[in-house]
Amino acid sequence: MAYFENVDKVVYEGPASENPLAFKFYNPEEKVGDKTMEEHLRFSVAYWHTFVGDGADPFGVGTAIRPWNRYSGMDLAKARVEAAFELFDKLNIPFFCFHDVDIAPEGATLKETYQNLDTIVDMIEEYMKTSKTKLLWNTANLFTHPRFVHGAATSCNADVFAYAAAKVKKGLEIAKRLGAENYVFWGGREGYETLLNTNMKLELDNLARFLHMAVDYAKEIGFDGQFLIEPKPKEPTKHQYDFDVATALAFLQTYGLKDYFKFNIEANHATLAGHTFEHELRVARIHGMLGSVDANQGDPLLGWDTDEFPTDLYSTTLAMYEILQNGGLGKGGLNFDAKVRRGSFEPEDLFYAHIAGMDSFAIGLKVAYRLIEDRVFESVVEERYKSYTEGIGRDIIDGKADFHTLEAYALNLRDISNRSGRQERLKTLLNQYLLEVCVAR
Amino acid sequence: MAYFENVDKVVYEGPASENPLAFKFYNPEEKVGDKTMEEHLRFSVAYWHTFVGDGADPFGVGTAIRPWNRYSGMDLAKARVEAAFELFDKLNIPFFCFHDVDIAPEGATLKETYQNLDTIVDMIEEYMKTSKTKLLWNTANLFTHPRFVHGAATSCNADVFAYAAAKVKKGLEIAKRLGAENYVFWGGREGYETLLNTNMKLELDNLARFLHMAVDYAKEIGFDGQFLIEPKPKEPTKHQYDFDVATALAFLQTYGLKDYFKFNIEANHATLAGHTFEHELRVARIHGMLGSVDANQGDPLLGWDTDEFPTDLYSTTLAMYEILQNGGLGKGGLNFDAKVRRGSFEPEDLFYAHIAGMDSFAIGLKVAYRLIEDRVFESVVEERYKSYTEGIGRDIIDGKADFHTLEAYALNLRDISNRSGRQERLKTLLNQYLLEVCVAR
Amino acid sequence: MAYFENVDKVVYEGPASENPLAFKFYNPEEKVGDKTMEEHLRFSVAYWHTFVGDGADPFGVGTAIRPWNRYSGMDLAKARVEAAFELFDKLNIPFFCFHDVDIAPEGATLKETYQNLDTIVDMIEEYMKTSKTKLLWNTANLFTHPRFVHGAATSCNADVFAYAAAKVKKGLEIAKRLGAENYVFWGGREGYETLLNTNMKLELDNLARFLHMAVDYAKEIGFDGQFLIEPKPKEPTKHQYDFDVATALAFLQTYGLKDYFKFNIEANHATLAGHTFEHELRVARIHGMLGSVDANQGDPLLGWDTDEFPTDLYSTTLAMYEILQNGGLGKGGLNFDAKVRRGSFEPEDLFYAHIAGMDSFAIGLKVAYRLIEDRVFESVVEERYKSYTEGIGRDIIDGKADFHTLEAYALNLRDISNRSGRQERLKTLLNQYLLEVCVAR
Amino acid sequence: MAYFENVDKVVYEGPASENPLAFKFYNPEEKVGDKTMEEHLRFSVAYWHTFVGDGADPFGVGTAIRPWNRYSGMDLAKARVEAAFELFDKLNIPFFCFHDVDIAPEGATLKETYQNLDTIVDMIEEYMKTSKTKLLWNTANLFTHPRFVHGAATSCNADVFAYAAAKVKKGLEIAKRLGAENYVFWGGREGYETLLNTNMKLELDNLARFLHMAVDYAKEIGFDGQFLIEPKPKEPTKHQYDFDVATALAFLQTYGLKDYFKFNIEANHATLAGHTFEHELRVARIHGMLGSVDANQGDPLLGWDTDEFPTDLYSTTLAMYEILQNGGLGKGGLNFDAKVRRGSFEPEDLFYAHIAGMDSFAIGLKVAYRLIEDRVFESVVEERYKSYTEGIGRDIIDGKADFHTLEAYALNLRDISNRSGRQERLKTLLNQYLLEVCVAR
Repeated sequence: MAYFENVDKVVYEGPASENPLAFKFYNPEEKVGDKTMEEHLRFSVAYWHTFVGDGADPFGVGTAIRPWNRYSGMDLAKARVEAAFELFDKLNIPFFCFHDVDIAPEGATLKETYQNLDTIVDMIEEYMKTSKTKLLWNTANLFTHPRFVHGAATSCNADVFAYAAAKVKKGLEIAKRLGAENYVFWGGREGYETLLNTNMKLELDNLARFLHMAVDYAKEIGFDGQFLIEPKPKEPTKHQYDFDVATALAFLQTYGLKDYFKFNIEANHATLAGHTFEHELRVARIHGMLGSVDANQGDPLLGWDTDEFPTDLYSTTLAMYEILQNGGLGKGGLNFDAKVRRGSFEPEDLFYAHIAGMDSFAIGLKVAYRLIEDRVFESVVEERYKSYTEGIGRDIIDGKADFHTLEAYALNLRDISNRSGRQERLKTLLNQYLLEVCVAR
Repeated sequence: MAYFENVDKVVYEGPASENPLAFKFYNPEEKVGDKTMEEHLRFSVAYWHTFVGDGADPFGVGTAIRPWNRYSGMDLAKARVEAAFELFDKLNIPFFCFHDVDIAPEGATLKETYQNLDTIVDMIEEYMKTSKTKLLWNTANLFTHPRFVHGAATSCNADVFAYAAAKVKKGLEIAKRLGAENYVFWGGREGYETLLNTNMKLELDNLARFLHMAVDYAKEIGFDGQFLIEPKPKEPTKHQYDFDVATALAFLQTYGLKDYFKFNIEANHATLAGHTFEHELRVARIHGMLGSVDANQGDPLLGWDTDEFPTDLYSTTLAMYEILQNGGLGKGGLNFDAKVRRGSFEPEDLFYAHIAGMDSFAIGLKVAYRLIEDRVFESVVEERYKSYTEGIGRDIIDGKADFHTLEAYALNLRDISNRSGRQERLKTLLNQYLLEVCVAR
Repeated sequence: MAYFENVDKVVYEGPASENPLAFKFYNPEEKVGDKTMEEHLRFSVAYWHTFVGDGADPFGVGTAIRPWNRYSGMDLAKARVEAAFELFDKLNIPFFCFHDVDIAPEGATLKETYQNLDTIVDMIEEYMKTSKTKLLWNTANLFTHPRFVHGAATSCNADVFAYAAAKVKKGLEIAKRLGAENYVFWGGREGYETLLNTNMKLELDNLARFLHMAVDYAKEIGFDGQFLIEPKPKEPTKHQYDFDVATALAFLQTYGLKDYFKFNIEANHATLAGHTFEHELRVARIHGMLGSVDANQGDPLLGWDTDEFPTDLYSTTLAMYEILQNGGLGKGGLNFDAKVRRGSFEPEDLFYAHIAGMDSFAIGLKVAYRLIEDRVFESVVEERYKSYTEGIGRDIIDGKADFHTLEAYALNLRDISNRSGRQERLKTLLNQYLLEVCVAR
Repeated sequence: MAYFENVDKVVYEGPASENPLAFKFYNPEEKVGDKTMEEHLRFSVAYWHTFVGDGADPFGVGTAIRPWNRYSGMDLAKARVEAAFELFDKLNIPFFCFHDVDIAPEGATLKETYQNLDTIVDMIEEYMKTSKTKLLWNTANLFTHPRFVHGAATSCNADVFAYAAAKVKKGLEIAKRLGAENYVFWGGREGYETLLNTNMKLELDNLARFLHMAVDYAKEIGFDGQFLIEPKPKEPTKHQYDFDVATALAFLQTYGLKDYFKFNIEANHATLAGHTFEHELRVARIHGMLGSVDANQGDPLLGWDTDEFPTDLYSTTLAMYEILQNGGLGKGGLNFDAKVRRGSFEPEDLFYAHIAGMDSFAIGLKVAYRLIEDRVFESVVEERYKSYTEGIGRDIIDGKADFHTLEAYALNLRDISNRSGRQERLKTLLNQYLLEVCVAR
């Protein structure tokens, strides 16, 4: 039985193709350097947006037409698994991600919830035996249910902390069982609404206690996936503790957690925090903390998480540039934490959207690869900072300078000669490389 | 000779006074708890805005009418010192702050610059002998001159690094000589315009090297003032490395600098970074890093640093609340890093503006003090988190819980009962306390 | 039977009261000028937030504990009416507002929807006979149902236009029957997601056609309430056609609709559009278009409609200042288009929140009234523009000047002498008046 | 004598060229449809940024190295004219724009200012005789000088109104003499800092009086260029009256000025107002008010006018799409109201930057032309709204429907069937067209 009857297996047909249900740029087997596109990009489908999301927004109910919605309860959960693996196969996508509540409904009790999860995890495990699609990461949803109204690990209510711990424990067991490459912590309610009623210090301490317990438990059960923190500055809370990469880094350092975590960086979360996507990737990269990516895009004129499928080629190029400089994402991947617009409510739109995202990142990969291969920006940077490779600059780097030697040097300086940063020229080069990507070399 | 002929010494006349040049709420000698208002508030005048700023903006030249502008060069520098101590005296203000270039013009050479500085520092030192006004902090301006176009400690040009080092060395010597209570680092150009030409890792490494040298030199000369980092997210740069408190904290931790620095937190910088003023104060406070405050306010609908004099009583109250909870600011103070509007160009406006700020913080102090004295929010917080004082919550705090015990506990939980956060009620209480401040108890 | 068993009738007890369920400042019968507070403020409860809203947000389901939620379907609708009039009575509130779908569930067909509406409108009509609470305005919800996914009057689908017309027709009939003082148009989906698929001209033409039909039908049935447009810049759409007052004014002018409409101005919508609340009120006022107010507040650091209960006294004061200058709101009122925070989920919070809003506007009224009575800002303004009351200024106003006479005058000008705008001083005065409000004169 | 010794005449060399000082895409003589690129694009240099701007920002002095800066006073003004026509020629640019103060320094008196202007205008006129470069528009700077601190036409000081009138009168005379195709009004100070001291109604009335006088004077002297309003929401003022196209349209309608003006739309002003560039162009276009364009770009993460050279190909494409749909810009053009970054301070950067902008718009033109030629979005739109071409939709358009007929129709509707808006697919198509532009068809 097929849920997407109108869609065949999506294949690469090249830029000239007029088939909207084909890849124009994403050719999984094409080599870019010594890796295939598929190896570079490690795309992942987000279960929540694609199989659960219904297009509801704060002013409207769901619009999405989804063939599996004729079922309910556990039957719906099972139908979603079927639909998921059908879509994975048709899109030829190597990974997927989920929260616990995405795959199975919560039961009346925690025990029943566990049972529901077990049933569906069994089914997923079975499907995975014959599917190429693997689990990039899973996580526990600690934000939707009313019990998490004041947070989970940072709740003012210790019962909630305990409940959250149980959910993450189960999540780690599922991760272990399904061979997840990572496990993600997104603290959607780990923040505050108003400082007037908030003990920020206690909440941060508790968050650290919680994460230490998770680290311990993973070790205990032998789960060796990468732990990831996913920063977001706000929404749903007024202020979320993992505001951005730097903030979360400070937290991990303060609490001795830095060695156990990397970051899962989302484009739209970056812009909500006042940063570009590539900024967040760069900050994580130079600290050795770039783990995985939630590949989407926001609308810079809107102040909330729009979770759009990534189509901005500047953004995909500069993201892939950081990722290539990082030597790839290791266990991480490019997870489409993105939803079709509320007005794109037909099942086919799920395919159009994923194709849009996959082609856009394939282009980004090719452009970024050529930029690096040609050392376009590297040579600019090398030349720009070359004063640190000799003389007083070398002394500074080597720790041989101090305020005395530097002052003596400065007092003897005639004119200081700076050189143009050439930003306008560099942006032109970026455009040139972008436009050339579809032309064979 | 007087520069402010139309203004007499400003004194406390109480709320009923109709004299616009009197304090209505700031009564320096009034006790609030066991300290006087003057001891609590440690107000400071910002030399740059008050004696140098001319009201220019990106679309207009200066408008400010300043009696000392009939002079130029070193004569102007001297006239400003005279005007400054006249204003300090008339406002009865205990502190001031300056950048090197505020007090003395740069010379043709660094040596000449040093000489100009020495001349003016001599003069200031002389004035300080008979003035009550002390130096809260000084700093070196590493952003105005074209040589700093690509940064100072993070410049791509090692000569600039050296020059900046010389300026900070001199700044520390001046700090030592004038008995500055703190020394501030604001990295106005320590950031980037575009990642395309930026070696972020090298720049951050160099910034750390620079600060370590400053720490060493302060130790060498026996300067025991507090070192302060002043975070700002952007402007003039596209992205400044000391984005906010958390970002700068991560940096200090990464480079082993945490023990030597605290933060100088500016209200307008907080909001530009997407935080409330009180958030930044809270984050610094709970990490033991709250050093000093740049007391101003921004316009939440404008996207640049407006540096307005603080008049929002919610903001002054919540700021003083954090400061009181911190046990005061220690060596820090409330520096009016604020400028009169371009349209407020008459000399008297400098007084109206400082009175506005001082009265607003005096009100904030009184409201915050009463809120704490009455444990208005403390008792709410205590009650809210009390589940961590017993049972499973106590175990979590005491490190006796793990995912096994928590899961077992959670499996036995019936319903989880949360309680309302009562935000609307708490805001009402804040209003009530605010309105009562002028009524004697 | 009572839904709010723990709450008695809320009465005025004065500022010193410690009863959280009493008014401290809102004394309905207190005279402010020649009108009572109740006459000035014309408070209204928003049915949707208070009786329908459940605290759901994009990342979480409802949290609100509402006694009437034990019912469903039409029984729930009826229970809400009972609860509503209980709350109206206990809060002594003179008005309420609703969308059609707030009061009665949609049926399987439009006809059935009409029947549901008729049943509940009968019930409301009956309640209103013995209640003091009147209908400030009603409206048709043209945004929640999937049929409105691409808009209502601006839908690309003519069937949807027709359906929307039917709903508004029914809404006008209900307005007429219940004696609504106004009828509101908020075009939540009247905008676009992407220009790539949008015929903006046709959509605007259709919106105008729709409004003309509404005007005609109101005339036909003799509904003489005021028609109101409620501007909002975005959310849920990427861009809403009634962006702000000025944009909607341009639209009304372009399509010959200006005489039939005024504006319903919401504080949070103003700030989302980049304006202060008082700016939008002022623009509407000077164009004779200030109709009614949605009294809430946003969070200037969050980019979405938070719809908080209004507690910022600067905002309530400056709003009441504009309203008093307007000679009041006429048929309009202050509708609390505000919701308790998701964390304020207990029934009592509905009372705390409305008390917070009512007291805050009562304070705003008193402060604004005194400011105007004392001509604090009026005298400043009068003095500031007095050059237009004589000489060349008078000529300009009287239409006697042209570029020739003005140039001749300018060529003879010696120095142009401007005077300080005194912004800092004016803000101090505002603070002084704010703090004095609780002190009897 | 040459000011740009290192730069030869910039010519088209095609995408494959590695010469950074050549056009890769802008080929003036290339036909795009029945017009050449040069005719379509009508590029213009902004005199202020390119010949006057020095790279100063609120935290730093100028950095720009400009060969003409060895002169001062009127000699500097003359050198700038020489440099300007050298650059115009080397860039082969058909238009330029200026404010009065850009070309000649203000004198001690208005009369002297006139004389300075006359001298330079003579010189420009002489140059124009042998240059292909024409004057796109000029304007009077009514915002830099302190006299305009409280506005010009909206100043509270009638003397300032008169002075501004004299300047615009002179500006119109210069426009007439130099054959300007347009005359622009940008009201940089026509707004307010605080409503507390502002008579908004009087200020708007005066602005209208001023513009009526300008219309009258242009008629009197026979200047038949197009009058343009350039909207901007804020900066330098807290709030500018010409906030955006819709706001300015409302103003023009209110005061009977609509027939005399069109809009000069700036990309960066659009985004500061919360709109996309293409939104503002679309709104102007469908009201028949699209006059000219200030071609630049902002940084969506920065809250001020960055005036960057346009390099975002999405933006140039969607702008050209609106312009082509408008049948071109008529007398208007694409004026690079853009400045090189402060760090791009070498004279060559002026060329790199203009080339960046010109190539980017050339690409945008080609992509937009093909999109329209292929009816990519047109056919989508036509199909999407086709319900208005028959049946009830046709009745609505034809004015034959009313609430009675629509309700009758709606009551008989079974299901309403909407269709997907296909946003993700449309964005993919845009990318495809963008990437294909460099490939010959």
